[in-house]
Amino acid sequence: MSADILPLLAALALILVAGRAAGAGFERIGQPAVLGELVAGIVLGNLGLAGVHALDGLRAAHGVAILAEIGVLLFLYRVGLETDLAEMMAVGASSLAVAVLGVITPMALGALVSAWWFPSSPPLVHAFVGATLTATSVGITARVLADLGRADGREGRIILGAAVIDDVLGLLVLTVVAGIIAAADHGRAFDALSAAWVVGKALLFLAAALVLGRPVSRAALRIAERLPGRGVTLVAALALCFGFAWLAGRVGLAPIVGAFAAGLVADPADLAAAFPARAADGAHHATGDPLEPIAAFLVPVFFVLMGLRVDLAALAQPGVLGFALLLTAVAVLGKQACALGVLEKGCDRIAVGLGMIPRGEVGLIFAGIGTTLTLGGAPVVSPAVFSAVVIMVALTTLATPPLLVMRLRARAPAR
Amino acid sequence: MSADILPLLAALALILVAGRAAGAGFERIGQPAVLGELVAGIVLGNLGLAGVHALDGLRAAHGVAILAEIGVLLFLYRVGLETDLAEMMAVGASSLAVAVLGVITPMALGALVSAWWFPSSPPLVHAFVGATLTATSVGITARVLADLGRADGREGRIILGAAVIDDVLGLLVLTVVAGIIAAADHGRAFDALSAAWVVGKALLFLAAALVLGRPVSRAALRIAERLPGRGVTLVAALALCFGFAWLAGRVGLAPIVGAFAAGLVADPADLAAAFPARAADGAHHATGDPLEPIAAFLVPVFFVLMGLRVDLAALAQPGVLGFALLLTAVAVLGKQACALGVLEKGCDRIAVGLGMIPRGEVGLIFAGIGTTLTLGGAPVVSPAVFSAVVIMVALTTLATPPLLVMRLRARAPAR
Repeated sequence: MSADILPLLAALALILVAGRAAGAGFERIGQPAVLGELVAGIVLGNLGLAGVHALDGLRAAHGVAILAEIGVLLFLYRVGLETDLAEMMAVGASSLAVAVLGVITPMALGALVSAWWFPSSPPLVHAFVGATLTATSVGITARVLADLGRADGREGRIILGAAVIDDVLGLLVLTVVAGIIAAADHGRAFDALSAAWVVGKALLFLAAALVLGRPVSRAALRIAERLPGRGVTLVAALALCFGFAWLAGRVGLAPIVGAFAAGLVADPADLAAAFPARAADGAHHATGDPLEPIAAFLVPVFFVLMGLRVDLAALAQPGVLGFALLLTAVAVLGKQACALGVLEKGCDRIAVGLGMIPRGEVGLIFAGIGTTLTLGGAPVVSPAVFSAVVIMVALTTLATPPLLVMRLRARAPAR
Repeated sequence: MSADILPLLAALALILVAGRAAGAGFERIGQPAVLGELVAGIVLGNLGLAGVHALDGLRAAHGVAILAEIGVLLFLYRVGLETDLAEMMAVGASSLAVAVLGVITPMALGALVSAWWFPSSPPLVHAFVGATLTATSVGITARVLADLGRADGREGRIILGAAVIDDVLGLLVLTVVAGIIAAADHGRAFDALSAAWVVGKALLFLAAALVLGRPVSRAALRIAERLPGRGVTLVAALALCFGFAWLAGRVGLAPIVGAFAAGLVADPADLAAAFPARAADGAHHATGDPLEPIAAFLVPVFFVLMGLRVDLAALAQPGVLGFALLLTAVAVLGKQACALGVLEKGCDRIAVGLGMIPRGEVGLIFAGIGTTLTLGGAPVVSPAVFSAVVIMVALTTLATPPLLVMRLRARAPAR
């Protein structure tokens, strides 16, 4: 075991130093730290292009992805902790409209450009390519808003709610499109009932998390508080975060949706009491948020890794770059329809549209499933289309922070 | 990526809850929490024996071992932080004597029982089996001492120093014995020079860590303190911990030796300033130790996993159990010679001997190397001997906490 861990240790030390240094550098020039972390990752991951091959193994270092995944779960859990469920519900109608528009428009545009670029492919293939553009990956936007101190604004709540809803809608689209493709390929009838059950499970989980989540979470933390030892409520909170994420994954949603839900129903005050400090007067005092040090360790690992995965060499592949740029353009433009879904007056509609741009894991998972489906003997998602989706995910991720910062600064110059 | 992570999330939630609950239970009956975590792991890992197979995948869940390894590194880093280098040097002569006795005696006894049990094997095989008993795994002992609030006693410092030294001695023994075996098997002469270089590198690392480590660590933290953003010194400390651990691994030592050295040369005050809290008077205050929440998350994962790896079914293998128990007996007895190495008066010699009992990764790694070496066509470490070493590691790990607690309580009843 010890020998396996060495590449991970070197990777971690490098990622932590590069991520924090670049983050600090970007903060100093008024940019969010997350942009620095992404850039640090891109630089470390593409040193091979400059002839430096010592770090080529970094992108695949065993364990980095695992720590990154834990990091993004904890990040979304903390975002949930700081989000007021009632305030989120208050903008629920907007979130729903934003999510619906943000699924339909990119999907339609994506199918259109696929039909134009690959005229000989069957229509179901175009529908599938469109489906890879549907789900927003809320991590980047939430992080930019947090870096700018705007996480608890109305725009942020609308985006978070819409991201949860569009994860469900994306699951619906994937289930239906993949189901129709599988049925067509095998000459069977599409099984609408089992497709409905897939989506029903996801909705059931979300409803249960919101209705039962709070009493369950409260009860668990109350029991934890009565156990001896330090940090018990922290451990209980982490277990709830991982447990909710696991459940979300089991019903087909992104685990971060579960982690966010776990944070939404938890009470930050329980966590602040995890490590009481004895003051001079002998009384116990709550210290800072115990999740903050854990997040400071693991969250940058996720964002640096996202940068590491941007393989600049992929941009040079002939025949891929053109379609990738087209796909990215409709991915970005498609989500701007979200602005029309904001019902509140005085709300920054453009910022909501920009905040919905990032695509992530879910798009990659959709594309990955597409590579395993066949239609008339050919894979639904060809290697070239898969590469294009990977580039689209990278570009939408990188484009969001600067666009969002520009927009929010322009609207709030006095901040 | 997201789909792979689900088994890990379920395993983590279960490990955290079971570990903390069992730890709290054992604390309530006056036992160290670590014993509860080990027992929780054994129970979870062996439910298959009771017909419950739902958790059979837990032991191998992708990622648990990685988080556990990070946890034990951070634990040893914190032990190093709380250890005063000067006070450790003051008991250095004892540590050296304890380490030397604790390597020679178990090795000699181990070779003897191997020669008795496997009379037809060549002497080099017996020497190799003896070598698997040399290195103390200091994690368990350090944790028991910390749980009992005795981490900064003289006995603790002697044990820590001896564990660092016996890691070097173990490396020396392994290099020489494996080198002689490889030379004998291939009919070459033993290359003493390259064996000396293996050990020289390790000594060089330790010397450099102790001499250059403090200025390097100081300089890194000073630079970190001047960067904007929260948690910068924490990130720098983590990077130093992982960097030192990586270096230790690269020179052939256990990574935890590097993590301990990193903690030894760091200043806890730098860490306490990582997350300043703004008080009512507007001034910034240092909050608690930011490593404590990270440790509360990851350290129990290591100790629960050690329990998970105790495969009770292995005890039932015919022909293995007898030798395993014999090996365990000499592993325990051999380290009691360490008591003779304690030079300080009024020091609890018995506690030092008990504290040196646990064997861990290093013994397993030695045995693993032995399975890849051959002598006259047969592997130096047979599958049966390997299983016996695994059982010996488990039993010495489990035996230490109760023995150490009994001894320390008996000597300090007023605590």
